[in-house]
Amino acid sequence: MSTPVPTLQHCETLDRHDPLRPLRDQFDLPEGLIYLDGNSLGALPSATAARVAQAMTREWGQNLIKSWNTAGWFTLPQRVGDKIARLIGARPGEVVAADSTSINLYKVLSAALNMSAADTPPKRKIVSERSNFPTDLYIAEALCRERGFTLQLVEAERIDAALRDDVAVLMLTHVNYRTGAMHDMAALTARAHARGILTVWDLAHSAGAVPVDLHAAQADFAVGCGYKYLNGGPGAPAFVWVNPRHTDRFWQPLAGWWGHAAPFEFTPDYRPAQGITRYQCGTQPILSLTALDCGLDTLLAAEPLGGMAALRRKSLALTGLFMQLVRTRLHGHGLGMATPEPEGLRGSQVSLTRSEGAYAIVQALIARGVIGDFRAGNGAAHPDILRFGFTPLYLGYADVWQAVEQLRQVMHSGEWRDARFAQKHAVT
Amino acid sequence: MSTPVPTLQHCETLDRHDPLRPLRDQFDLPEGLIYLDGNSLGALPSATAARVAQAMTREWGQNLIKSWNTAGWFTLPQRVGDKIARLIGARPGEVVAADSTSINLYKVLSAALNMSAADTPPKRKIVSERSNFPTDLYIAEALCRERGFTLQLVEAERIDAALRDDVAVLMLTHVNYRTGAMHDMAALTARAHARGILTVWDLAHSAGAVPVDLHAAQADFAVGCGYKYLNGGPGAPAFVWVNPRHTDRFWQPLAGWWGHAAPFEFTPDYRPAQGITRYQCGTQPILSLTALDCGLDTLLAAEPLGGMAALRRKSLALTGLFMQLVRTRLHGHGLGMATPEPEGLRGSQVSLTRSEGAYAIVQALIARGVIGDFRAGNGAAHPDILRFGFTPLYLGYADVWQAVEQLRQVMHSGEWRDARFAQKHAVT
Repeated sequence: MSTPVPTLQHCETLDRHDPLRPLRDQFDLPEGLIYLDGNSLGALPSATAARVAQAMTREWGQNLIKSWNTAGWFTLPQRVGDKIARLIGARPGEVVAADSTSINLYKVLSAALNMSAADTPPKRKIVSERSNFPTDLYIAEALCRERGFTLQLVEAERIDAALRDDVAVLMLTHVNYRTGAMHDMAALTARAHARGILTVWDLAHSAGAVPVDLHAAQADFAVGCGYKYLNGGPGAPAFVWVNPRHTDRFWQPLAGWWGHAAPFEFTPDYRPAQGITRYQCGTQPILSLTALDCGLDTLLAAEPLGGMAALRRKSLALTGLFMQLVRTRLHGHGLGMATPEPEGLRGSQVSLTRSEGAYAIVQALIARGVIGDFRAGNGAAHPDILRFGFTPLYLGYADVWQAVEQLRQVMHSGEWRDARFAQKHAVT
Repeated sequence: MSTPVPTLQHCETLDRHDPLRPLRDQFDLPEGLIYLDGNSLGALPSATAARVAQAMTREWGQNLIKSWNTAGWFTLPQRVGDKIARLIGARPGEVVAADSTSINLYKVLSAALNMSAADTPPKRKIVSERSNFPTDLYIAEALCRERGFTLQLVEAERIDAALRDDVAVLMLTHVNYRTGAMHDMAALTARAHARGILTVWDLAHSAGAVPVDLHAAQADFAVGCGYKYLNGGPGAPAFVWVNPRHTDRFWQPLAGWWGHAAPFEFTPDYRPAQGITRYQCGTQPILSLTALDCGLDTLLAAEPLGGMAALRRKSLALTGLFMQLVRTRLHGHGLGMATPEPEGLRGSQVSLTRSEGAYAIVQALIARGVIGDFRAGNGAAHPDILRFGFTPLYLGYADVWQAVEQLRQVMHSGEWRDARFAQKHAVT
């Protein structure tokens, strides 16, 4: 490559001229830490603690049960959903924030299978990617077992070939949790529809990370996660979207009272609400949902600065810089690139591979104040991964430079071979 | 009745001699308010705001992703579950706090139907009570529809007769949300088992309200709510218990990664964890779960004072006092008693009926600082209800006296007929 290797000084200059730099002030990040794990747990927004404290002491403590009305708790899943909608190309009233990603996936996959039940000849398959996030596969497997369907897992490059007439649903995670590889949602949806196949998209690593336009892609169903790029806090509620052309026509079995047309009439028969509200089930955790509301505000604050398009430009610049620095400054240390290099094919993370020591290298890097994570491999085609997420809201170019420098020192010193970095934790 | 009508002075004396009185200091209740709605949303414990603030600023803000291990987020559903176990006659390791009551009911009802699938002759019915909490009926209805079962709804007095050989599951809420009537869990479970019928108990209005002994009753499955008597905050996660004789034998379809034997191995195939952990699905809302943890501590603080047995004695004294005062001081105001008077047949609430104005009367009472709630009726057998919950942790005898006095003034003045009390809210 003829491009000169960027220096720290150059990166600091980029930061000074970065129009998105003020967005960083929305977060309380620990001093001196370089946090490259916002793809796993987004950072704490400065506004969250006070807002949740108010929900506790004033709304819950003082106003108690009245707050379902006066503080708007009752409609919080929809109001938070409307904020998410602005990030994923959905319209107001089309998204609810509720439950977990796994549970929302169960809802939409159930609805999709219910839709497909009337097809002739019968379609009895769900197709997904072998390296999809496991919980998605578990949920699909469970539904297949219940409904007499088959889950067909293929490698990414075999998806097209798998879209045959006997397939009911194509279920994919838009950006792969391991590699950061991004599917072309619109193209795959079009090819699926051409075969009468419905599409279910998991946006866990897309929402708030890359521009998503569900309507432009004509997608059928989508779910996503609240605690990654949406900065909603640990275990924040997830979200669910259903294309309005399907919402009122089909039914999902997690048919609790919050999805009822009139939950406070307390009638014994289920009558689904109109619209996305029928994809609610039970009462939602208001404190965690309030934190998610604050997390979303940190993304919506980017709207006057160009919104997701501007965040995407910076994200690509950050991941591109990281890739370039790894290639040049870490050459010879046995690190491979699991993330596709073309910009249109990657999300907002970069994953490295190494045949030995990936876990310990991540631990050694964490000990130096650079937080990434490790994802275990699964066979030769899916090696162990050192995973680094780049959140343009709170990361700068100099952070990227420093992260690579720390990784260089970890590799150069061989300190990762120290026994203390080998010990595995419950959550890795 | 020959018993003299208790005076306010007498009630104040009872409060002064109440050994459970110090438990009240655990709560931040608004000055001057008499809160009789802890059966809908428990009050804010004084410790909660600081504990959740710590989860936000230190665990999430400073330690970020590491807190899954270092702050024990990963095992919080089990640790909170262990606290709940102490209140419901379950053992450590048998309960998880997760998701909503509706969703947990779907899990256990699915597992129960899976268990029954092998029965010969086939059993194809779920029996429940017509006035069961509607979301329970909706979930059962959904599963029946999916699995080719029938949901048979009967009045409480017809449950015995309905336990026939073609019934797979008896699903009941232990204490009725409308009337506060309490089933005999052990007796009904024994009668169900004699017919080869599994029992699913919803403890939403029992856990923390009345002593429950799931093992003594030999119950099969139980679920319950975190935000009522457990004081977990608005929409706090719910809980689920499965009798250990069933836990590892059966499978539930909300089979997400948190129920996997090794979630961080990221294998594409679902392998259920041992024990109750397999009844987990996705990531749980840690902030709301932390608040629930604090709520449970307010109940466990009663253990040195006699625990649930002592709380039950006081609860019966409070509800008995309320009933006596309504009978004597509100005579002639057209108020009926929906709650059974025998102590063994009621939970920790008292529900009144009135043929006219129940909603407005509750609103007028709220305007006077006495918080109860209204539950709409459903046909002649189930009239409109004025509902009052009595939480012995933070209510005293004088509170009960004052509440009845305010109700007396509302009825006597006729002020409830004012138009402003007729306006319905989204959540009632």
